[in-house]
Amino acid sequence: MVDVLALAAFNAAYAQVIDSDRLEQWPSFFTERCSYRITNSDNAREGLPAGIVYADSRAMLEDRVAALREANIYERHRYRHLLGLPFVTSADEHGAVASTPFMVARIMHTGETALFATGEYRDRFERVEGRLLLAERVAVCDSNVTDTLLALPL
Amino acid sequence: MVDVLALAAFNAAYAQVIDSDRLEQWPSFFTERCSYRITNSDNAREGLPAGIVYADSRAMLEDRVAALREANIYERHRYRHLLGLPFVTSADEHGAVASTPFMVARIMHTGETALFATGEYRDRFERVEGRLLLAERVAVCDSNVTDTLLALPL
Amino acid sequence: MVDVLALAAFNAAYAQVIDSDRLEQWPSFFTERCSYRITNSDNAREGLPAGIVYADSRAMLEDRVAALREANIYERHRYRHLLGLPFVTSADEHGAVASTPFMVARIMHTGETALFATGEYRDRFERVEGRLLLAERVAVCDSNVTDTLLALPL
Repeated sequence: MVDVLALAAFNAAYAQVIDSDRLEQWPSFFTERCSYRITNSDNAREGLPAGIVYADSRAMLEDRVAALREANIYERHRYRHLLGLPFVTSADEHGAVASTPFMVARIMHTGETALFATGEYRDRFERVEGRLLLAERVAVCDSNVTDTLLALPL
Repeated sequence: MVDVLALAAFNAAYAQVIDSDRLEQWPSFFTERCSYRITNSDNAREGLPAGIVYADSRAMLEDRVAALREANIYERHRYRHLLGLPFVTSADEHGAVASTPFMVARIMHTGETALFATGEYRDRFERVEGRLLLAERVAVCDSNVTDTLLALPL
Repeated sequence: MVDVLALAAFNAAYAQVIDSDRLEQWPSFFTERCSYRITNSDNAREGLPAGIVYADSRAMLEDRVAALREANIYERHRYRHLLGLPFVTSADEHGAVASTPFMVARIMHTGETALFATGEYRDRFERVEGRLLLAERVAVCDSNVTDTLLALPL
């Protein structure tokens, strides 16, 4: 049975990989065929499929990390994720559906810190060979104006 | 026995109802006769009873939600709660006394996001017919100047 | 066995002592010989030993609290810590190594609230006479420009 503590520990590890600039490990939190999107609550409510960021496989996530490294964007800022406890909609031994609130601060190279994004992850977890993985993560941002600033994954 | 995980799960559900604009469900987290207040730490320290917002029954909370809907205030902004782990002062099979830190971001219709309120909930939980409910929640804000901006519940 | 919930409860109590201005209790969360430092991620990555704040005993932490009281700095602002779930690197019955993300808001006497510091605690916990204590806590701030503002402990 996948429980709330296992999901919370998964999320803590996920956030740490991004916030400590170990982006290469980020795709390993997803299943091979997966769905990762960043969108906002207006789009999500209207059921609009296209988000700000879209990937439907782990390979696409790896490409995205490679592009970020190429562009050296990762040197210009970093993130700090603070996550709430997952709200579990359903769970069994094979996986879980849950949503988890987030606040993400962005720290610029100059040291300036700002609350960058808030929202909630809407997730579908699958247990694959004993390991919990994300089959789907939709990061639904509360604000509809974070689009152009997005670089690092949420 | 009411434990910290049960309280944390309760709080996660409570926050999600507010943050996803399902305000009509918010009163259902309280006992029929309950105390809900928003105040600030200066007032709380001096033992001043009157807070910024005050309700002593679930019916009053329902009235408040109806008034918010009437005024369409809910269209103008939304909140995002991030909650810490409850600090449990006492707990038995009938209920618990706990305090829980919060940060609440406010997202305006324009997309602007700001850290709106910080503080802690001071709570008394009761188990009623097997279900955990709030007999008392005092949201003690750290700042004494959030008063006039308050609209959605904390 | 020291588990993640015990560490999270420890951190919740730690934060509450600072945020509710019970600073005199803060040193009691550490072992008698301990290491407490505040540094930033640039310094931490380069292995620079000297941080912004440094103490190597509980007595030094007590001196720091006394100095803060003397200077009345505690009247000028307060903090609100929001902590993530500890990411546990290793744990046994004697202690644990873990890192925990934090966001700290600062609330000025004027009521102004700002996101003051983000980062992660890098901790070594020891169980001493049945009680969990910090043998080492390094608060690694994400930004390198919080230095001059630091007064209350993180």
